[in-house]
Amino acid sequence: VTRDDEAFLSALAGVLPGDGLLTEIPERYTHDEALGVEPVVPLGVAFPEDEAAVARIVSTCRAYRRPLVPRGGGTGLAGGARPHPSGIVVSFERMARLLEIDSEAGWARVQPGLTLADLDEALAATGLCYPVYPGELSSTVGGNVATNAGGMRAVRWGTTRQNVLGLRLVTGAGDVLLTHGALAKYSSGYDLTQLVIGSEGTLGLVTEVSVRLRPRPLATTLLVGAFRSLRALPTAVARLLASGLEPGLCEYVDKTALAAMADAAGLVLGVPADVTEQTSAYLMVELDASDDDLCGRLAERAATLLAAHGALEVFALPASQAHALIAARERAFWTVKALGAHDILDMVVPRSHIADLLEAAQALQSATGAVVAGTGHVGDGNVHFSILATTPSLSEEIAQRLIAEALALGGAVSGEHGIGVAKRDALLAHEDPLRVELQRAIKHAFDPDGLCNPGKGAP
Amino acid sequence: VTRDDEAFLSALAGVLPGDGLLTEIPERYTHDEALGVEPVVPLGVAFPEDEAAVARIVSTCRAYRRPLVPRGGGTGLAGGARPHPSGIVVSFERMARLLEIDSEAGWARVQPGLTLADLDEALAATGLCYPVYPGELSSTVGGNVATNAGGMRAVRWGTTRQNVLGLRLVTGAGDVLLTHGALAKYSSGYDLTQLVIGSEGTLGLVTEVSVRLRPRPLATTLLVGAFRSLRALPTAVARLLASGLEPGLCEYVDKTALAAMADAAGLVLGVPADVTEQTSAYLMVELDASDDDLCGRLAERAATLLAAHGALEVFALPASQAHALIAARERAFWTVKALGAHDILDMVVPRSHIADLLEAAQALQSATGAVVAGTGHVGDGNVHFSILATTPSLSEEIAQRLIAEALALGGAVSGEHGIGVAKRDALLAHEDPLRVELQRAIKHAFDPDGLCNPGKGAP
Repeated sequence: VTRDDEAFLSALAGVLPGDGLLTEIPERYTHDEALGVEPVVPLGVAFPEDEAAVARIVSTCRAYRRPLVPRGGGTGLAGGARPHPSGIVVSFERMARLLEIDSEAGWARVQPGLTLADLDEALAATGLCYPVYPGELSSTVGGNVATNAGGMRAVRWGTTRQNVLGLRLVTGAGDVLLTHGALAKYSSGYDLTQLVIGSEGTLGLVTEVSVRLRPRPLATTLLVGAFRSLRALPTAVARLLASGLEPGLCEYVDKTALAAMADAAGLVLGVPADVTEQTSAYLMVELDASDDDLCGRLAERAATLLAAHGALEVFALPASQAHALIAARERAFWTVKALGAHDILDMVVPRSHIADLLEAAQALQSATGAVVAGTGHVGDGNVHFSILATTPSLSEEIAQRLIAEALALGGAVSGEHGIGVAKRDALLAHEDPLRVELQRAIKHAFDPDGLCNPGKGAP
Repeated sequence: VTRDDEAFLSALAGVLPGDGLLTEIPERYTHDEALGVEPVVPLGVAFPEDEAAVARIVSTCRAYRRPLVPRGGGTGLAGGARPHPSGIVVSFERMARLLEIDSEAGWARVQPGLTLADLDEALAATGLCYPVYPGELSSTVGGNVATNAGGMRAVRWGTTRQNVLGLRLVTGAGDVLLTHGALAKYSSGYDLTQLVIGSEGTLGLVTEVSVRLRPRPLATTLLVGAFRSLRALPTAVARLLASGLEPGLCEYVDKTALAAMADAAGLVLGVPADVTEQTSAYLMVELDASDDDLCGRLAERAATLLAAHGALEVFALPASQAHALIAARERAFWTVKALGAHDILDMVVPRSHIADLLEAAQALQSATGAVVAGTGHVGDGNVHFSILATTPSLSEEIAQRLIAEALALGGAVSGEHGIGVAKRDALLAHEDPLRVELQRAIKHAFDPDGLCNPGKGAP
């Protein structure tokens, strides 16, 4: 800690209440959940309690030209919350209040540090839900905004982008911006809400978010379809999504991933051996409706449709198994992490190319001997590959080849995890310089000194 | 036409094929459909046939520092396509091809000049549709992108913003930008697609759009609920949207507007006199499903729900009447224009405040003697008021007061028509200078010389 560092920390302590700044850094603030990203110890961790405190923190960082890294639940998978050694982490755990639920109007106004678990619990009694379930309920709304978090249910209700109605932000210049109110439609200028969503904290610090609420499904049925070939999946998915049955989730799980998930959850799905032997991929499809009668009818139609389009068998799971399987799918990251995965990829391609990408992964698996297990939000063209290789460098090589493949198919490096630091080199190696230049100009308008989460994301 | 003008037009003619530039300007290119916006004659109208021609046009305009105004179907309601007297209109009527339908993947790639009517016709056989129906099928996809067009069905599927997967743009600097491919999810940098949507041609000229396709409803039922009081509407709408029945449209029509629409369409709805006498507002609700059986069940539940939340009566219309009423609603603009409306407003408020806004309109109507008739996308908090006053200045005063009221309720000047020139003064009178400054910086990054649709929209 230099004399400059001390002056900075002392100025920062001066604008925060007594316990608002930590300079002995607990380990958990030195990283997020990204695999393969080395921890970094910041100079301090600040805990603002309101927007005014956030603005004071930004001003102080500007005065001392110190980087600031926002942090929500620390559950990010791309290193977006990795600290900067000469700056501070701004943790939103003391800005975690649910400010207002307007169930009549279908929205809630929340502070960015609110976890999805707390939001979901508060909404349970209203019959509504915030429909973005990225698979990690300890993540925060602010963190979800940063990465445009998606998850299994995005196929029905969209990602964070489609479910945020407006937000407040302290820009990197220290200005307080209300992008716009809680509006379902907007055509009164560039949509700054949309610009902030997915910007990974590089434009400023989000201080308030208005989220859209949707009906909490009253009745659900989970189907699992077993498919012999990857090639059959896209057609079945296309027909399902075109049917008007509107599945609440439509999830691809390969046989390796399903076995690992079932094993980790102690779940016996009871798929007959003659079916499992012939199966290379499973499709999880959830139907929902306002009552059991309607839901049953939807599930019946969906099962018939999957059987007509290549499913060897379609199973309707009993509620307890359905719940356990979905929970296991949500824990898939922890399962593969425990198995020693080196990397988790998050590419997105136009849905027409999903089979090409899955086959490329299979080919790499065969060629290298590494495990490249896939689960994916197949209805959105978004696939997660877990790579377990003999060495980190083989894992890296496989990741590079899969990313190049996805880009060649018209895809992008990340669909929902973000770029952070983990995927930045891969992104910049392929990115159109014009896109980089435009993004840098936009960043400069919000954050002229480049202090907000430097070295993260695209710009 | 000055010597400079001549040099510019001659340079422009040099980069376009023989009939690619008109300098005798047909009347229709001098305006769009905005009420109260005076026509302007441009120096020329250019008709590019491909992206390369668009890029040549932009380069030529840059070399001569001449403004360019993009034009789709010319159906805009805010004067966004009003020409500039010293510049040109770029009409996309020769870039109107449907480039690709991938019904398997659920998207289509189109040129910006394609009309919604042509797109819808091409999609009819696929069982899919582009779900944005702004009420004017002669509008183009490019024009819809410019204003983030919405319409009646946005309550189910969202506005243009939620249904464009990627696009191409020639920026004001003359660079060709692919924002990203046809991706349902994206977390690989700032979402430039979203930035362009709703930017009213002020960042550049859109040359290609990938749109999302949704199931074309196979069975539909239209309900009309009669409500005694405006105050009952928001609760009924909230319960309907929270029910999981997912109406395909949820439209408020006041009794004045319904009478005018029915009259213009020669439609007899057969609502008993004792009901009409007690009614001040109607709610149109469409249910849809994959077959008649399911649809009937949904409609039954929706009717019960509306009756339980304040509807005096709920009528299920026969298919032919349903079709005619929806068509009449889509023609509402032409109906009120024919009646001599001075202005059409397009404010959006958080849905919780819709009754406040409707009551403010009623109060102004009573106080001024003007007609302030409302129809609205009530499920999205978006209301259109048609103002028929004794003088244009009274109309203007009523418009200003309603806009101020909407902004005080946390709303915005436009939900789907855009700002154009018609609502620019109203917007700038109230707009946060920080939002203006940020938007100007963004515009400058895309359009450094300020040639793209100057004087339109927010920045």
